[in-house]
Amino acid sequence: MTHRIALIPGDGIGLEVTPVGVRCLEALARRPGLDFAFTEFPYSCEYYAEHGAMMPEDGIEQLRPHDAILLGAVGYPGVPDHVSLWGLLLPIRREFQQYVNLRPVRLLRGLTSALRDRGPEDINYLVVRENNEGEYSEIGGRLYDGLPEAMAVQATVITRKGSERILDYAFRLAQSRSRKRLAYATKSNGIKHTMPFWDEQVAAMAPNWPDVQVDGYHVDILAANFVTHPDWFDVVVGTNLFGDILSDLGPATAGGIGVAPSANINPSPDMPSMFEPVHGSAPDIAGQDLANPIAMIWTVVMMLEDLGEQEAADDLMGALETVTAEGRVLTRDLGGQAGTREFADRVLAELKG
Amino acid sequence: MTHRIALIPGDGIGLEVTPVGVRCLEALARRPGLDFAFTEFPYSCEYYAEHGAMMPEDGIEQLRPHDAILLGAVGYPGVPDHVSLWGLLLPIRREFQQYVNLRPVRLLRGLTSALRDRGPEDINYLVVRENNEGEYSEIGGRLYDGLPEAMAVQATVITRKGSERILDYAFRLAQSRSRKRLAYATKSNGIKHTMPFWDEQVAAMAPNWPDVQVDGYHVDILAANFVTHPDWFDVVVGTNLFGDILSDLGPATAGGIGVAPSANINPSPDMPSMFEPVHGSAPDIAGQDLANPIAMIWTVVMMLEDLGEQEAADDLMGALETVTAEGRVLTRDLGGQAGTREFADRVLAELKG
Ligand SMILES: CC(C)[C@H](C(=O)O)[C@@H](O)C(=O)O
Ligand SMILES: CC(C)[C@H](C(=O)O)[C@@H](O)C(=O)O
Repeated sequence: MTHRIALIPGDGIGLEVTPVGVRCLEALARRPGLDFAFTEFPYSCEYYAEHGAMMPEDGIEQLRPHDAILLGAVGYPGVPDHVSLWGLLLPIRREFQQYVNLRPVRLLRGLTSALRDRGPEDINYLVVRENNEGEYSEIGGRLYDGLPEAMAVQATVITRKGSERILDYAFRLAQSRSRKRLAYATKSNGIKHTMPFWDEQVAAMAPNWPDVQVDGYHVDILAANFVTHPDWFDVVVGTNLFGDILSDLGPATAGGIGVAPSANINPSPDMPSMFEPVHGSAPDIAGQDLANPIAMIWTVVMMLEDLGEQEAADDLMGALETVTAEGRVLTRDLGGQAGTREFADRVLAELKG
Repeated sequence: MTHRIALIPGDGIGLEVTPVGVRCLEALARRPGLDFAFTEFPYSCEYYAEHGAMMPEDGIEQLRPHDAILLGAVGYPGVPDHVSLWGLLLPIRREFQQYVNLRPVRLLRGLTSALRDRGPEDINYLVVRENNEGEYSEIGGRLYDGLPEAMAVQATVITRKGSERILDYAFRLAQSRSRKRLAYATKSNGIKHTMPFWDEQVAAMAPNWPDVQVDGYHVDILAANFVTHPDWFDVVVGTNLFGDILSDLGPATAGGIGVAPSANINPSPDMPSMFEPVHGSAPDIAGQDLANPIAMIWTVVMMLEDLGEQEAADDLMGALETVTAEGRVLTRDLGGQAGTREFADRVLAELKG
């Protein structure tokens, strides 16, 4: 079975870590019955500099026939975020209705947590972020711009359909785990309209999942508990913005942003999902073989799982964690000496056995 | 000079920690030239149960003639947040235009950080939260409620006036500190209208403060950096919601919510400011002499500073930190054995010398 993979290396360290992901996939493809067809797309800030857009007008259509999209990182100094992100990353998430942003937070063996006295057994949860609506809306604008009376208004929109589908995903995921716990982020004590609505969806669905223990936390307290009680968490679901904050905070306690993977999932087989490390393009370290490829390798693991290739996924994750546990070859952000390529070589050697 | 203090003990552990604050003030008032006149207000969830409102209709008017309001905590199981908070806490913040919510994050000597290898020299910053507008607005509602098409919409409103005054406060504060650094939280890469507007206000004001080093962070990364690089921060300013999240997260790294103080400040002398611990009413431990009074004592220190009583403030803070540094008498949340009263007694003994 050939999986059609669209590659978008993007900018900065995206150009260094994406090839690592491809090397892992190619190594796995030596196995009988597993194959990948790669198509590379140059959509990036560099593309923007040449063409005045982050991708061509039919960019989404070109990506559509693939089974998955693997993205490195997007962003470049001088190109404003609203161009680079709203011109590429966010349209892909939305056009393909990738309404689940799944971000595991797990301290890999051998890595040191920024939290005192916390080890791999304490930090192992999944952040499920709503990825299509909520606080990231295009609705809003300004009044009296340039005058002392100026103001900006922005609408958060939470729909029943949008919250039901992400909550359904989160409940299902919690049900599948041994601890069966679901924490949800809210702020219904301060945000009067959208957040009580969100809470009501949770309350309405909970009885359908009698095995799942549901706990609501206001997002401020939840963030605090990621630091003081990471062991309380199993599956954590939040709206777009809250999920964004929590899924950067979690990794900060688990080896840093350089190791954090993510999947933008549309569970339907009709549309491609997109897989990307949580880290950005990191222009300050780009091109120097300094990037930590762990996030990308782990992201590839998530892609393999989504493609139904569980065995390949397990093998790659096993190789990765053997190398981190061993602790001899690590990149500088983790206190080691290795470059991007040397680390990747070590994982590939381990994978081949 | 007699300072007129309105006391609102509120609910739960508010009823235990507010008397500790009063005892500290009474001890300080034995000094010549310092005096307090207390008026207690029973506004609380219990009051609500009797009167059907958290405070009487003229509650705000009754509070107005005071120099400061000292609040314990509000909230009780069974009374929904929108009643207890939007009926008392939030109207006080708004009617008195307490647009600054100032929340110090500092690891007191003797306390242990939840962060690995971090001591008091690493964690010492001030979160300045916009307290009157932004994401906490009453604007919004529902469409198609009860139907599959249901949705809720909520407006975030950021005004130039509202952001200028909080930023002015933050710049001024940064200028007054030895490190002179100001970090601001944004999310202009995802939230298209209000956040770029906020960024523009910062950019427009920065040239007026040439000594202050200004750094912008998206709130997701900022939260992560509170864990990985707390030593980077000096003054941190954010909108209402972002400030809320960051000011719970910060304390989680600095001894926990039980030690975190806050001040809701209107810098003009015409309206009272309100001082309250960050913690809530904690019904689970209420009435058992288990509450940590550090947050309240530190909150009283902030109140004294705001009232211009710097010497009294310094003495009380000195006594508090002598006791924490000594580490013999601490409450259970900090690994000690002491009750609320015993800890308070120890601080008062230290204060009297
Ligand atoms: C209780 C709640 C409305 C409040 C807030 O979010 O402002 C609290 O979390 C705080 O930080 O004072
Ligand atoms: C770059 C930005 C728009 C994006 C987001 O907030 O979604 C990023 O922070 C992420 O988490 O993928």
